[in-house]
Amino acid sequence: MKKLLLFLIITSFTVSAQIKRTEPPFWYAGMKNPELQILFYGKNIAQFQPTVSNNVVITNIAKTENPNYIFVTIDTKNIPASDLVFSFKDKSKVAFTQKYSLKERRNNSASRKSYDASDMLYLLMPDRFANGNPANDNSKETTEQADRSKPNGRHGGDIEGIIKNIDYIKELGATTVWSTPLCEDNDPRGSYHGYGQSDVYKIDPRYGTNEDYLKLSSELHKKDMKLVLDYVTNHWGAQHWMYKDLPAYDFIHQFPGFAQSNYRMSTQFDQNASDIDQKYCVDGWFVKSMPDLNQANPLMLTYLTQNAIWWIEYADLDGFRVDTYSYNDKAAISKWTKAIADEYPNFNIAGEVWMQDQAQMAYWQKDSKIGAIQNYNSHLPTVMDFTLFNAIEKVFDEDKGEWDKGMVKVYDNFTNDFLYPNIDNILVFAENHDTQRINQHYPDFKKYALAMTLVATVRGIPQLYYGSEIGMTGNKDKGDGDIRHDFPGGWNGDANNAFNKAGRTPEQQQYFDFTSKLFNWRKSNNAVHFGKMTHYLPENNVYVYFRYDDQKTVMILINNNPEKQVVKTARFSQNIKNFKTGKEVISNQNIDISNEISIEPKSALILELN
Amino acid sequence: MKKLLLFLIITSFTVSAQIKRTEPPFWYAGMKNPELQILFYGKNIAQFQPTVSNNVVITNIAKTENPNYIFVTIDTKNIPASDLVFSFKDKSKVAFTQKYSLKERRNNSASRKSYDASDMLYLLMPDRFANGNPANDNSKETTEQADRSKPNGRHGGDIEGIIKNIDYIKELGATTVWSTPLCEDNDPRGSYHGYGQSDVYKIDPRYGTNEDYLKLSSELHKKDMKLVLDYVTNHWGAQHWMYKDLPAYDFIHQFPGFAQSNYRMSTQFDQNASDIDQKYCVDGWFVKSMPDLNQANPLMLTYLTQNAIWWIEYADLDGFRVDTYSYNDKAAISKWTKAIADEYPNFNIAGEVWMQDQAQMAYWQKDSKIGAIQNYNSHLPTVMDFTLFNAIEKVFDEDKGEWDKGMVKVYDNFTNDFLYPNIDNILVFAENHDTQRINQHYPDFKKYALAMTLVATVRGIPQLYYGSEIGMTGNKDKGDGDIRHDFPGGWNGDANNAFNKAGRTPEQQQYFDFTSKLFNWRKSNNAVHFGKMTHYLPENNVYVYFRYDDQKTVMILINNNPEKQVVKTARFSQNIKNFKTGKEVISNQNIDISNEISIEPKSALILELN
Repeated sequence: MKKLLLFLIITSFTVSAQIKRTEPPFWYAGMKNPELQILFYGKNIAQFQPTVSNNVVITNIAKTENPNYIFVTIDTKNIPASDLVFSFKDKSKVAFTQKYSLKERRNNSASRKSYDASDMLYLLMPDRFANGNPANDNSKETTEQADRSKPNGRHGGDIEGIIKNIDYIKELGATTVWSTPLCEDNDPRGSYHGYGQSDVYKIDPRYGTNEDYLKLSSELHKKDMKLVLDYVTNHWGAQHWMYKDLPAYDFIHQFPGFAQSNYRMSTQFDQNASDIDQKYCVDGWFVKSMPDLNQANPLMLTYLTQNAIWWIEYADLDGFRVDTYSYNDKAAISKWTKAIADEYPNFNIAGEVWMQDQAQMAYWQKDSKIGAIQNYNSHLPTVMDFTLFNAIEKVFDEDKGEWDKGMVKVYDNFTNDFLYPNIDNILVFAENHDTQRINQHYPDFKKYALAMTLVATVRGIPQLYYGSEIGMTGNKDKGDGDIRHDFPGGWNGDANNAFNKAGRTPEQQQYFDFTSKLFNWRKSNNAVHFGKMTHYLPENNVYVYFRYDDQKTVMILINNNPEKQVVKTARFSQNIKNFKTGKEVISNQNIDISNEISIEPKSALILELN
Repeated sequence: MKKLLLFLIITSFTVSAQIKRTEPPFWYAGMKNPELQILFYGKNIAQFQPTVSNNVVITNIAKTENPNYIFVTIDTKNIPASDLVFSFKDKSKVAFTQKYSLKERRNNSASRKSYDASDMLYLLMPDRFANGNPANDNSKETTEQADRSKPNGRHGGDIEGIIKNIDYIKELGATTVWSTPLCEDNDPRGSYHGYGQSDVYKIDPRYGTNEDYLKLSSELHKKDMKLVLDYVTNHWGAQHWMYKDLPAYDFIHQFPGFAQSNYRMSTQFDQNASDIDQKYCVDGWFVKSMPDLNQANPLMLTYLTQNAIWWIEYADLDGFRVDTYSYNDKAAISKWTKAIADEYPNFNIAGEVWMQDQAQMAYWQKDSKIGAIQNYNSHLPTVMDFTLFNAIEKVFDEDKGEWDKGMVKVYDNFTNDFLYPNIDNILVFAENHDTQRINQHYPDFKKYALAMTLVATVRGIPQLYYGSEIGMTGNKDKGDGDIRHDFPGGWNGDANNAFNKAGRTPEQQQYFDFTSKLFNWRKSNNAVHFGKMTHYLPENNVYVYFRYDDQKTVMILINNNPEKQVVKTARFSQNIKNFKTGKEVISNQNIDISNEISIEPKSALILELN
């Protein structure tokens, strides 16, 4: 008997070893969508017949043209958290088995809160932020070795580095960390940015472990902060294990193989677009090293959807940012987004929708009336304000206000706000990891301050890119590496440590003081988070707007004129009402607003009226 | 008895003389809207009690703060064409009477056809087109005297001049004449453009008479051509008789009196706009000499509505163009437009909506989904493609195709076509009387030809500005007068007469030959009028698009590259299908398209596939 048992265990173990991957590796009991599609990967696995224990019903078994895959869908409805066993039979004989866990969800997991306009997102690149654990700079599992001398190489930053600097991020006034992707990216070159993922269920060992990522989340939560995962639905890296042994030809977009995207996202809604242009936009690859995923394949779509949900549950996430959202198959990405919203009704997702006018961006926001023209609803809660970004990039070098120059560029951006179904869910930013750095555009602190004043006080969710708060520069014309420098002080032995006051240069301290004062002030201002906005046509390159609710009125004046300006306040009576003074947020001075307000050259005033 | 009658007639005549104006001067029986508001103007007329003959019912009598006005509304339902008599009583005694005619309408007046995408509009300024009757160059009733030496003076062009040159306009390939306003404009200076009207029921005597205008209409109709009136709802001239003795303070927008518009039409939909900016946009005056009408005053709105309808009936019009449409009171202009559509369901109206993006323009088109975001429907059938105009102004000087330069600018314009509820009702133009002349931008005939090829072959209603078809130039930087030169040959003794072949220079003939060939070809091409459009992302600054319906496919190739280009046709197989050759419209050559097409530098091919 014992011998028999031993024999069975050995047999089972031996044959089960041919399952190289089970994905998702485990799941959660009590999800709203009871259907769970499990991918089993192993040599010729498709020839076996799967069954499952605990009276769980298999609702579908999908095989593809590649016999090494089998996709088994089970109904988890009313199945408690438990360990299931999948048995794979060869004819009537169990050839091998695979344990599969349904775990308990956290309390209130489905109704989790997310980030919104009351937050401030700190965008960082983990490889470039802080190297908390030099021991993991290289790993046996991954190819590219750390080399800080290479602008586009791995530098060794990691999750531990982020965890160690949470207090810094909090002190700055950020409430939320958006890190660029942390999953394994085993590209032999340029893998540091993480957008060419090779395993979407595993944190890259050079950043740490899955457990480290969970720790980052819980450490942030302990400090009332939030974590946003940067999800990539559009492509994987060429080292992705599934790309090397594709389940089906059409799991990725094939021409066959690589063809470059034309990047013309307008083909997604252009009624005049030719089929071939539309195909090259959506099916074309972003770059040759990133196979473009075919989300229209239902097995692939479910895989991506479950992977996203798995990370939310596993790492207790507070939100997503989705890369290249508008390059995806339009119908499929809508299903993906809605599936997440169905599980987590409050979960925020910001999609990278890099379009050139507001109608085009608004198209992609949930319940868009513009999308509805084509019966399209992406279900995407948040889009990014790229037109404001375009304006911010130029405006502070435009000293003279003209018909279409100077602050009117910023004013104009907000005149189309009515096109967005949800104006509070717009990500507002002066730069990100793909753009010129704001301090490169404007080496002048005063102009940085103007840009940040806008970002902090207009409607929407502000986002700051790591390092700008201490004056970091970087020139995209020199390559992406140059806008992704290491944060000073993140590496042992860094001569300059900007993470703490003692280590900062006076210039860094000037940037930090301003930024942290601004965003810490913003934290508790509902009028700025969700209040209405009224703005006034700029005069003499001075832009005046108000954010207000029933409790508070904030008046913002941005003087983009290189001369001091005196603004008569009578024109603003609709918003000033009976207020006579305003407390300026940065200087703490109380200012008389009853008649006129004087503003220094290239500077702003943020006045809490009282 | 005879004496009594004579006495009554004399009395009636004498006292009735105090009615200085009756407007509309007559009306039509059988209008869909039976309500007719008649303005009677005369010294202290408001003290009299009006009654009317023929059992007609007065449904309303409105008096204003000015006793010289009375607005009498009658119900014309079921009243046949007839002469009515209004009696004005002082207590119970008839103080004076006023005859008032209800006339017969033309057959099928209500269902009249209008202009559409099968037409081509020839926009001319009557003062600058042709002086058919030098005897009317000056008149006793109007102030400004003709002086051809002044760029902004009256030059003497008139309706008779247009009538004399209908054959020329037809030969050019135009089907429709849009003349800038012809009603009396008695401004002492700059009255030649006609947008500062002083009497909206009377043709300016320097252009001719109301009967002349009717004759223009009928002469055009005899040649299967159409007439479009340029209507101005937004303002009158400071010499308007009603402005000199306002019925009510609020018939015009008062600050009091003049304040300049800020011209920021975005305030019409900007949910963040301040009240004061919105007010200055809509209520502010275009210029000081043009009092801004308050269409929100119901008496004024009805006056403007009836005036518009009166001209349609009287002059048998085929359509309107409406000046500064988006400066009007938004709700009122919608009522005005709808009232006309209610009477004439097929009547086209093109509104000048000079906005900077397609969503903003589409906002103003009838049944716009974008307007509907704010529950707004202008009922305006046609808007103008100002974004295409912006692109045309620049693109043909951009020799190199880049991400956002060269033909992609034109391509990009059409990617937003889905925003418009009616894509065929978009006025397409390379210039108009308010812009730089196209031949000033591009002194090169080749570039003119590229611009006209676009205008003639893309979706929408093409419009050509007088004179460009013979290469006329004009520099707006020198003032509006310079873009409104006299058409050569329109004046007796003109050395150069471009109205006929014998008088044209070789260069003028080159322009004319091309233009007339292009637009005459267009006349019978339903695929170009109402067909679908498919376009292809430009490569090497070559833009290729197709217009097609079940009967015909037209392939247009625009090579904006200064080098000859050879285009492989495989990429266009979606549209080329089994076609092997195409007949080029301008050269009449048959071209093999089965493999590749060669296009000369800075030139276009228009191919009817066969």
